[in-house]
Amino acid sequence: MERYFEALFNPRSVAIVGASRDPTKVGYQILYNLKARYRGRIYPINPHAEEILGLKCYRSVLEVPDEIDLAVISVPAPIVPQVAEECGRKGIPVAIVISGGFKEIGPEGAEREKKLIEIARKYGMRIVGPNCVGIYVPKVGLNTTFLNPARMGFPPHGHIAFISQSGAFGIAVLDWAAMRGIGISKFVSVGNKADIDEADLLQYLVEDEDTRVITMYIEGVEEGRGRPFVEALKKTTPRKPVIALKSGRSEAGARAIASHTGSLAGTDAVYGAVFRQTGVIRAYGMEDLFDMATALAMQPPAPGPRVAILTVGGGSGVMATDACSDLGLEVPRLSDATVEKLRKVLLPIASPYNPVDLTGSARDEHMLDALEILLRSGEVDAVIWIPYFMVPGISEQIVEKFVARLREVSRELDKPIPVVGAATGGEYTWKLAKKAEEMGIPMYLSVERAARAVWALYTYGKWLKRCGTYEEYVERFRKIVGI
Amino acid sequence: MERYFEALFNPRSVAIVGASRDPTKVGYQILYNLKARYRGRIYPINPHAEEILGLKCYRSVLEVPDEIDLAVISVPAPIVPQVAEECGRKGIPVAIVISGGFKEIGPEGAEREKKLIEIARKYGMRIVGPNCVGIYVPKVGLNTTFLNPARMGFPPHGHIAFISQSGAFGIAVLDWAAMRGIGISKFVSVGNKADIDEADLLQYLVEDEDTRVITMYIEGVEEGRGRPFVEALKKTTPRKPVIALKSGRSEAGARAIASHTGSLAGTDAVYGAVFRQTGVIRAYGMEDLFDMATALAMQPPAPGPRVAILTVGGGSGVMATDACSDLGLEVPRLSDATVEKLRKVLLPIASPYNPVDLTGSARDEHMLDALEILLRSGEVDAVIWIPYFMVPGISEQIVEKFVARLREVSRELDKPIPVVGAATGGEYTWKLAKKAEEMGIPMYLSVERAARAVWALYTYGKWLKRCGTYEEYVERFRKIVGI
Repeated sequence: MERYFEALFNPRSVAIVGASRDPTKVGYQILYNLKARYRGRIYPINPHAEEILGLKCYRSVLEVPDEIDLAVISVPAPIVPQVAEECGRKGIPVAIVISGGFKEIGPEGAEREKKLIEIARKYGMRIVGPNCVGIYVPKVGLNTTFLNPARMGFPPHGHIAFISQSGAFGIAVLDWAAMRGIGISKFVSVGNKADIDEADLLQYLVEDEDTRVITMYIEGVEEGRGRPFVEALKKTTPRKPVIALKSGRSEAGARAIASHTGSLAGTDAVYGAVFRQTGVIRAYGMEDLFDMATALAMQPPAPGPRVAILTVGGGSGVMATDACSDLGLEVPRLSDATVEKLRKVLLPIASPYNPVDLTGSARDEHMLDALEILLRSGEVDAVIWIPYFMVPGISEQIVEKFVARLREVSRELDKPIPVVGAATGGEYTWKLAKKAEEMGIPMYLSVERAARAVWALYTYGKWLKRCGTYEEYVERFRKIVGI
Repeated sequence: MERYFEALFNPRSVAIVGASRDPTKVGYQILYNLKARYRGRIYPINPHAEEILGLKCYRSVLEVPDEIDLAVISVPAPIVPQVAEECGRKGIPVAIVISGGFKEIGPEGAEREKKLIEIARKYGMRIVGPNCVGIYVPKVGLNTTFLNPARMGFPPHGHIAFISQSGAFGIAVLDWAAMRGIGISKFVSVGNKADIDEADLLQYLVEDEDTRVITMYIEGVEEGRGRPFVEALKKTTPRKPVIALKSGRSEAGARAIASHTGSLAGTDAVYGAVFRQTGVIRAYGMEDLFDMATALAMQPPAPGPRVAILTVGGGSGVMATDACSDLGLEVPRLSDATVEKLRKVLLPIASPYNPVDLTGSARDEHMLDALEILLRSGEVDAVIWIPYFMVPGISEQIVEKFVARLREVSRELDKPIPVVGAATGGEYTWKLAKKAEEMGIPMYLSVERAARAVWALYTYGKWLKRCGTYEEYVERFRKIVGI
């Protein structure tokens, strides 16, 4: 299996079958996007062109005088089987079929899809798709999507893998992630999942060093693939968090799936049970999915449900408390000893309880000292940090100082305690919030979203403990992030 | 009452008592922020300065040779009563007390607050605060907040009024609204609510022509003010939507309120019952509050719960269907006649059911024709529009075309049907989404948020019908937005 996935995610050479000279065509845009950043060898395949975008064209993959690791196929559906045959004969280990016109269009397409898979099996070739937008691996500049970069952005390399059963939604998420500054390790649009599906990808991603968290948008697993999916999840979640956005929760939604991908949405309760039994965290929307994923990618799991709220604004502290309670997290009273320690270092008008309200008159040192006291108290399992960067006493260097203190104290703790931030505000606030994210603290626009992120860290921590892998996971995480 | 509020929100002259020459002081920043855009007469009051920021200073309001409509007081708490006395003698109708050091610090402060109110009553002067950040009225450039504009932005004029019991949260929201492009009619930080509170402001805002929607962050009403609050809500909601973000929902949250504003959070169930009985829409977070408010400010209420989903991406259509179902909205099957009409104008691969999935191959005309068919069908009460601006067949002019068609058809409908958009994506997408918002269609980053916005439009429509004011409201709304 390793060989296929190495060819898929880190190919030395790629053939674009159906490369086009016409900029309005998918086959042009794929080549354009790939050429933009990919540094391996690229072979456009087009029987009617000599050269496209400065690259020599070949009539068929069989004419390419080199080994080809990956074929990207974007030709009319009726020709796909023939092209697949040639790819098989050439010994190409894996092909991405972008073309639509298969199972999703009805019986005729389903027949064609069956034939495609028979050909692939004959040659031991693996298939992504058909009817997909392919993959995006920023680390190696591999981009097989076909949207015009003037209309969309591509995110940087990062630690979140994203598998999407919807190509359009996958594209929209990449575009949003680019604007939001969320890094992606691997993106795969699985399309009709005629061959490679979530179960296969999980087996690879659980070992992938660049991936810390696996996210997916899924409408349903294909017939006969339920068991492999469950088995793969069982093997993955004790080692890496998996977060799933499963649609078709409602009857109307399941009906909509039937006319979209035709996947067996099944009863939602079945998926719910599978997710619970395999420790998959379920997301209820795009922002929810990535809010939780960024937390799990940047911070250690929470060892328990006790949350400290460290705020500069009292109202935000109250709302964060509500949000934690809604999610079953605790915002415990602190011990008298801890309250006393806080009182000594904070302003007289500050509130040394939990939420710890530094007030709008806070200065950097109040925030840093309070953080340290909370982390060392042994009374909390996570911290929600609400910094209000705009108040005058908080310096522009607060992020560096805060992260330095957090890392320094974290190294001395038995169990690391996650910290997530909530930063409601505008441009100045988000300049500093983005700096915090670059330094490893996930930041959210609202306290409700920060609380949800903590909930994910707690839920995953609980799962790891149940699996007996908490210690191992945390040790590895500490090494990776250097705390 | 009119007179006080006219003096507060549209003063001809403002005195800043405690204006300072020291840029690190609140009394400097208030003057700076006010001077930046306010075009009325400004009188800095400071017994030790001749001139600040080019404005002549006076030793006391009593020395100002002019009528003063509004006093903004930012002096140490012990001096506030004396200053209030002078303001009263001067005949100033309303004063904003920015200074802290009142009820929120304990019995001594409560005593001082009581004295302040006695003085105000004696002279028939109204008070905003104390312990607040004052007001912001972009239309007249009135800004009494004291944060450095290098660290925060201020939103443009718009149609949403925002009342906040938390000053810091209010500031953060303004800053965020500026970045997000959400317009504000009036912002009031009510602070300790020693005099003017939500009940008073509702009476003014229900008549205010610039305000279409009233939003509030509230921790609790003050003792003895429950009845006026309920009465004011009852009079307001049949004419304008009110959306409340009430914190202290949880026990831990109520405890946090006690140490924040000391308001009587009361049992949350009481507030819940009041909101239900008075038709207040309850929000569960900052984004939720403004997601619903922007929808109600821009779009007519939905006449019923039936939602059409018009999408370019199948997956997003499925997720939008789920989100609607979660909220008790319907995504009905369309009649055979409507399906046939859609089929005639759409691509063969499109799905003419509901969700109407135009597919990634859609062109502008498919989107426009489908919109018109849905609006005219009589089978749906709201439309969620998921345009995927990045796909190649959709032109950069789609927003103008879409809004033109929507307005044209809306004018011919018995009851206008609201349309809200969901635009997951990055910079190009949001450039077009912002254009759509400028033209009156609220846009959301995710389908879940768009569904919630429709829910608010439906819920408010239902309330208006119950009040017997639906027709009147809709007629007025149509006039305002010209449909």
